[in-house]
Amino acid sequence: MKTRTPRETLTEKIEIVLPQHANAIGTAFGGTVMSWIDICAAVAAQRHCGRVAVTASVDALDFLSPLRVGDVAVLRAWVNAAFRTSLEVECVVEREDTATGARVLCVDARLTFVNLGEDGKPLPVPGLTPETDEEHARREAAERRRAARLSARK
Amino acid sequence: MKTRTPRETLTEKIEIVLPQHANAIGTAFGGTVMSWIDICAAVAAQRHCGRVAVTASVDALDFLSPLRVGDVAVLRAWVNAAFRTSLEVECVVEREDTATGARVLCVDARLTFVNLGEDGKPLPVPGLTPETDEEHARREAAERRRAARLSARK
Amino acid sequence: MKTRTPRETLTEKIEIVLPQHANAIGTAFGGTVMSWIDICAAVAAQRHCGRVAVTASVDALDFLSPLRVGDVAVLRAWVNAAFRTSLEVECVVEREDTATGARVLCVDARLTFVNLGEDGKPLPVPGLTPETDEEHARREAAERRRAARLSARK
Amino acid sequence: MKTRTPRETLTEKIEIVLPQHANAIGTAFGGTVMSWIDICAAVAAQRHCGRVAVTASVDALDFLSPLRVGDVAVLRAWVNAAFRTSLEVECVVEREDTATGARVLCVDARLTFVNLGEDGKPLPVPGLTPETDEEHARREAAERRRAARLSARK
Amino acid sequence: MKTRTPRETLTEKIEIVLPQHANAIGTAFGGTVMSWIDICAAVAAQRHCGRVAVTASVDALDFLSPLRVGDVAVLRAWVNAAFRTSLEVECVVEREDTATGARVLCVDARLTFVNLGEDGKPLPVPGLTPETDEEHARREAAERRRAARLSARK
Amino acid sequence: MKTRTPRETLTEKIEIVLPQHANAIGTAFGGTVMSWIDICAAVAAQRHCGRVAVTASVDALDFLSPLRVGDVAVLRAWVNAAFRTSLEVECVVEREDTATGARVLCVDARLTFVNLGEDGKPLPVPGLTPETDEEHARREAAERRRAARLSARK
Repeated sequence: MKTRTPRETLTEKIEIVLPQHANAIGTAFGGTVMSWIDICAAVAAQRHCGRVAVTASVDALDFLSPLRVGDVAVLRAWVNAAFRTSLEVECVVEREDTATGARVLCVDARLTFVNLGEDGKPLPVPGLTPETDEEHARREAAERRRAARLSARK
Repeated sequence: MKTRTPRETLTEKIEIVLPQHANAIGTAFGGTVMSWIDICAAVAAQRHCGRVAVTASVDALDFLSPLRVGDVAVLRAWVNAAFRTSLEVECVVEREDTATGARVLCVDARLTFVNLGEDGKPLPVPGLTPETDEEHARREAAERRRAARLSARK
Repeated sequence: MKTRTPRETLTEKIEIVLPQHANAIGTAFGGTVMSWIDICAAVAAQRHCGRVAVTASVDALDFLSPLRVGDVAVLRAWVNAAFRTSLEVECVVEREDTATGARVLCVDARLTFVNLGEDGKPLPVPGLTPETDEEHARREAAERRRAARLSARK
Repeated sequence: MKTRTPRETLTEKIEIVLPQHANAIGTAFGGTVMSWIDICAAVAAQRHCGRVAVTASVDALDFLSPLRVGDVAVLRAWVNAAFRTSLEVECVVEREDTATGARVLCVDARLTFVNLGEDGKPLPVPGLTPETDEEHARREAAERRRAARLSARK
Repeated sequence: MKTRTPRETLTEKIEIVLPQHANAIGTAFGGTVMSWIDICAAVAAQRHCGRVAVTASVDALDFLSPLRVGDVAVLRAWVNAAFRTSLEVECVVEREDTATGARVLCVDARLTFVNLGEDGKPLPVPGLTPETDEEHARREAAERRRAARLSARK
Repeated sequence: MKTRTPRETLTEKIEIVLPQHANAIGTAFGGTVMSWIDICAAVAAQRHCGRVAVTASVDALDFLSPLRVGDVAVLRAWVNAAFRTSLEVECVVEREDTATGARVLCVDARLTFVNLGEDGKPLPVPGLTPETDEEHARREAAERRRAARLSARK
């Protein structure tokens, strides 16, 4: 099974915040943004596994700055770390000012996907080969979080 | 500001999983379920604050058992703990077998809501008065999680 | 076949009126509210029959007070009466003021569901055992309406 | 205020039943069909009043034959009768076999619309001038139903 | 195979522009209008072929005047010309002023549909018999456009 | 007004084809794909203009290979040519085999966007500076198409 780099899993998804995505106060409804994130992260996971991966959990999802009707939202997702049968995927949502190209981080999310076989049992996933220092740091942070989760369960 | 009990914030939302909610393998698409949870939890938070509360973060959301097309999904949300200007809300999604009434836990989620004023600044929230042993245990667990998050940030 | 009480069929569904649910004048679009009612009432019918029931008719659906964008809408449905192969289900939609807990009745609807077998033929439904005076009164009113409908058809 | 004929209010709306409109057993979900009917009937009412009319009630809506995924659904609505500030609109949904042009009646519905002014108070509606025998019969039946409703309320 | 007249394929579809159909500036979102056109034109094609036809291309679609939230939109589609295994369908979208009945052309579109068999191979389509001068002119214009497209490909 | 390169306008949007996007034969419904294209192309236009641009026309949109439920669809859009107050944007939709990374072209579309000011009058757009041979060829083809359209109108 060929290993993958985080860059090979990078997935981008543009959206425009329309009134159908808004809540009563004119900002993007949380559930809509979560749906966009789930799609974008699922493709990053699928690009790593080479087949459909299933959302097992949302481990963190922080709304940092609002998205308003009319805003251009840029979602980007990539794999942080690969474990035995699961993956940690990170997805960020940025608001882009198209006049200047400047972007503001609006949502930062981490999700776990599982590589399920056709019989519903988890399958091994390919390894992840970080290339840059940032990618190495992300993998280590993901591994620390996973170790903390596992020890918290005991 | 009158305190509230967890029971006063209990919010229920029924759904039937339709093909428009499904992914390619016939189970409820993760993003759809997250949207349902966001609505149900937001009303529990609003019932505590007496006014609109805004989703600040999804702290955990675990898919434990699949929801399939045709399933009856019962969502229930309540406030676990009230902090100075924010709340931890828990939301569970169960699949109900209507022949027997038996329910299976499918999703367990914890979200943080913030009580934003009209000027966008956080406002104090009413206190929470647990009544049962389970409610006391939930509040303590929420306070431990919050303490852990705050110490992790430092 | 075990009889059911109306209370066993009680089904609750919370919604927040979002811009995607509104018409051009900022109130909930009638068709959206009808969709919510159909889901809520169908689960009440399914809880009575122990299996999927199909909407046969909307017998009355009155819009009494508007639902506006941002409103919390509480839907509640229950079985009024069980006939040979069909059921009358009532569903009310109330607007809740979360500051005071006060509710205003916005929609009152009565629907008939049929218990269809896999071959598309109607199956007998369990009996209904009212417990309270109000439940007895609802069953009698439903039976009078049905008798009036049957005599009107002749 | 110019009177209108039923023919002047005739409104047609084509739909194809897609998977996003279906329930778990492959037929059109009741709530979706009700949404289509609400739009089609509202335009018939608006064509009579010359301005926006608001759904006051669904007086009857009978599902007579199922609509399946892939079916072509033809909706037609028209005004049956005009009262002082309200209208009875009928809407039928037929399934069309495009090979032969044959149509089967799937849903028959009657709704009441109110002509609301900008201050939320009902305004008088133009009179209705039936032209054919069938249109005269429909108006008389609508007037009998209205008289029966008014006497039932007392 | 019986030929068809353009009039036999005429398909009408009413819509009301709701906030869920709008973009950030309060007019109908282009993608929503394209979805409405695709449905309306597909039924016109299906009425000609007597069976499902598949969208092969949008050859032109011009937004001439905006549709705003609250507007009544009338879509009409018909077959312009039938070729060996494909059809040119035209669809216009008009905004109707229900006070006067006046209509303004908002979108004019031409699409090509293919009559696909169950094995995915194109099947011959029935001929088209124009009746009016306008229908003859439309067929000739469609044939000229097709000849120009075929010669441009060489 | 600073000119832009085609590369600066490149916009990517990932989608997974879900049952809610499908027609009755299990492929992506044409209207859904057109909606995705409209969003992706609109952002490419907005990145060129630095402000909201409005869809003026779909000049061509060819369905070349089907998208099926479960497929990963990659949309990419960029500016082909800038005229006085309008832009030609191209958008392609490819199906990605995530096991191999191979992509198949499913839809190729060209749209014209107009740079509308707040008073609804067209504003000048920045110039486009192609960098690669392919970008130069695209600009020339777009200019030839525009000249042909203008001469056809006379």
